[in-house]
Amino acid sequence: MLDFTLLGSGGSMPSLKRHFSAALINFQGRKILIDCGEGTQVAMRKLHTGFKSIDLICFTHFHGDHIFGLPGLLSTISKSGRKEPITIIGPHGLNKVINGFLATMSRLPFELQLIEEPRDELYLTIENQLLTISPSRQARNKKIILTNMELDHSLPCLGYSFYIVRRPEFNLEKAMKLGIAKEHWSRLQKGEDVYIGDKLISPGEVLGKERKGIKLSYILDTRPIEGITDFVKGSDLFVCEGTYGSDDDLDKAISNKHMTFREAAELAYKAEVKKLLITHFSPAMEEPGIYAENATDIFKNTIIGYDGFRKKLSYD
Amino acid sequence: MLDFTLLGSGGSMPSLKRHFSAALINFQGRKILIDCGEGTQVAMRKLHTGFKSIDLICFTHFHGDHIFGLPGLLSTISKSGRKEPITIIGPHGLNKVINGFLATMSRLPFELQLIEEPRDELYLTIENQLLTISPSRQARNKKIILTNMELDHSLPCLGYSFYIVRRPEFNLEKAMKLGIAKEHWSRLQKGEDVYIGDKLISPGEVLGKERKGIKLSYILDTRPIEGITDFVKGSDLFVCEGTYGSDDDLDKAISNKHMTFREAAELAYKAEVKKLLITHFSPAMEEPGIYAENATDIFKNTIIGYDGFRKKLSYD
Repeated sequence: MLDFTLLGSGGSMPSLKRHFSAALINFQGRKILIDCGEGTQVAMRKLHTGFKSIDLICFTHFHGDHIFGLPGLLSTISKSGRKEPITIIGPHGLNKVINGFLATMSRLPFELQLIEEPRDELYLTIENQLLTISPSRQARNKKIILTNMELDHSLPCLGYSFYIVRRPEFNLEKAMKLGIAKEHWSRLQKGEDVYIGDKLISPGEVLGKERKGIKLSYILDTRPIEGITDFVKGSDLFVCEGTYGSDDDLDKAISNKHMTFREAAELAYKAEVKKLLITHFSPAMEEPGIYAENATDIFKNTIIGYDGFRKKLSYD
Repeated sequence: MLDFTLLGSGGSMPSLKRHFSAALINFQGRKILIDCGEGTQVAMRKLHTGFKSIDLICFTHFHGDHIFGLPGLLSTISKSGRKEPITIIGPHGLNKVINGFLATMSRLPFELQLIEEPRDELYLTIENQLLTISPSRQARNKKIILTNMELDHSLPCLGYSFYIVRRPEFNLEKAMKLGIAKEHWSRLQKGEDVYIGDKLISPGEVLGKERKGIKLSYILDTRPIEGITDFVKGSDLFVCEGTYGSDDDLDKAISNKHMTFREAAELAYKAEVKKLLITHFSPAMEEPGIYAENATDIFKNTIIGYDGFRKKLSYD
């Protein structure tokens, strides 16, 4: 299960109605922040999310409306008593930007582990009660597979997909046949080997077939390039930018490397996602809701985002 | 005349009631920003102050709650069409902090002129419709004298005093006696020399005695050290930190290098200022107003600050 919160639905310039871009994933009590526009810590305070349990921060790109909340948030986390490292992932430029921010701050009481331009999938596990990047795809206890794709914006920009792995079914019959006592079942289902006497039982011996997990994808800021459809395919929640609501703003969307609501909905339709959440609204748009039909015409299950939007995603 | 606006009255951690520290001086249509906590650009947007006419930014010190709004504000100013340089003044560390922020941003379309640890008074004039630092105290057209003092905080910290110079009275009788035509009077009063035929008339020949200007002083964050009284003496508006309202928090004020309301009021009383504005409230304090008496007991003309507080200061 996963809990998604949209912290800020605004883009570009300051707005009185919306915080700048940021979203939060809560997974088993640990948190992943995606983007961190100015004021993100205030949005978090409003929604009582807490600051201490953020283990991972993913940046789509390094425009100010997605990053200028980071130094304030890190300062506030440092006052929360956190000592454990935080991993930060982002496209080309990550090291430069983070080192720039660090030059403006007092020394943090925790380490920042930077992953710039991740080439491959990353595997997240929970170790010592922290969400941690696992070095190997073979990690049996991986909880989340984090994939990225290069988008088409005016700066290097990454889209992200979070796939929450669901353990295979536990085959009771096999377990009984092998004479495995009940107290070992849960470790086997978690993917761990178990010794019974001096006999090694591996999870494969008692687990059934793979089951579909939960997929959340996050695509902003970009033009609707071709690869996106495959990348977000079948998402339970597809978070997508829609900077402009009106179809008349397509030219602006093209020249500023953004999307209209209709373009976001077309991606959602082609990728057969379950739900589309549109966000990152131009400050010129007072009420994005009045353009909702431009999206729902194409893809019915669309939500026009707002600060504080929350959605629990569960296994089927 | 000067127009003062308190943009943010909060200190330290994020609050839902108050923006972080920032204040704005409007003088003849040009603006001076003092401190720039995270969200300052949103506070400015709320109050419709505009972004383009900020010529000078003064930082008291480099704690996050006073500076993390700068990159966002500079980005927004850069979208306003501004091309003219902005001067930034601050204590030790200014160059490091500003260069850190610049590493996180796209190239700005205007220059930043940095004055780190200004030793002496600075003289502000208006040239080419911009508030500019004048190189010499002899500048006849100086409009504002900007003084600073070192405060007592956990980082190098400067207090500022802005003295708006008032031109001496124009002595009509002398001007008539010297046969100076009316069209020259205003230039002479502005402190400029005038030629009448080939005869040079200097302002001293027609101006009367000096007149009292307007004094605004700004003291945060600090303990109430001795030099402050002289530094803020006779201010028309004395903006002073009062992180803690309750007298019971004196120990906290001492260990965190801040002040209580009572301490701020004692400074105001000793310095015989006209008005005290207390700001920079601890986020633990929901309603600073309930502690107002701790200040007004000592100094009656006290205002407990709030975001958006505005005060016009005029010559006597």
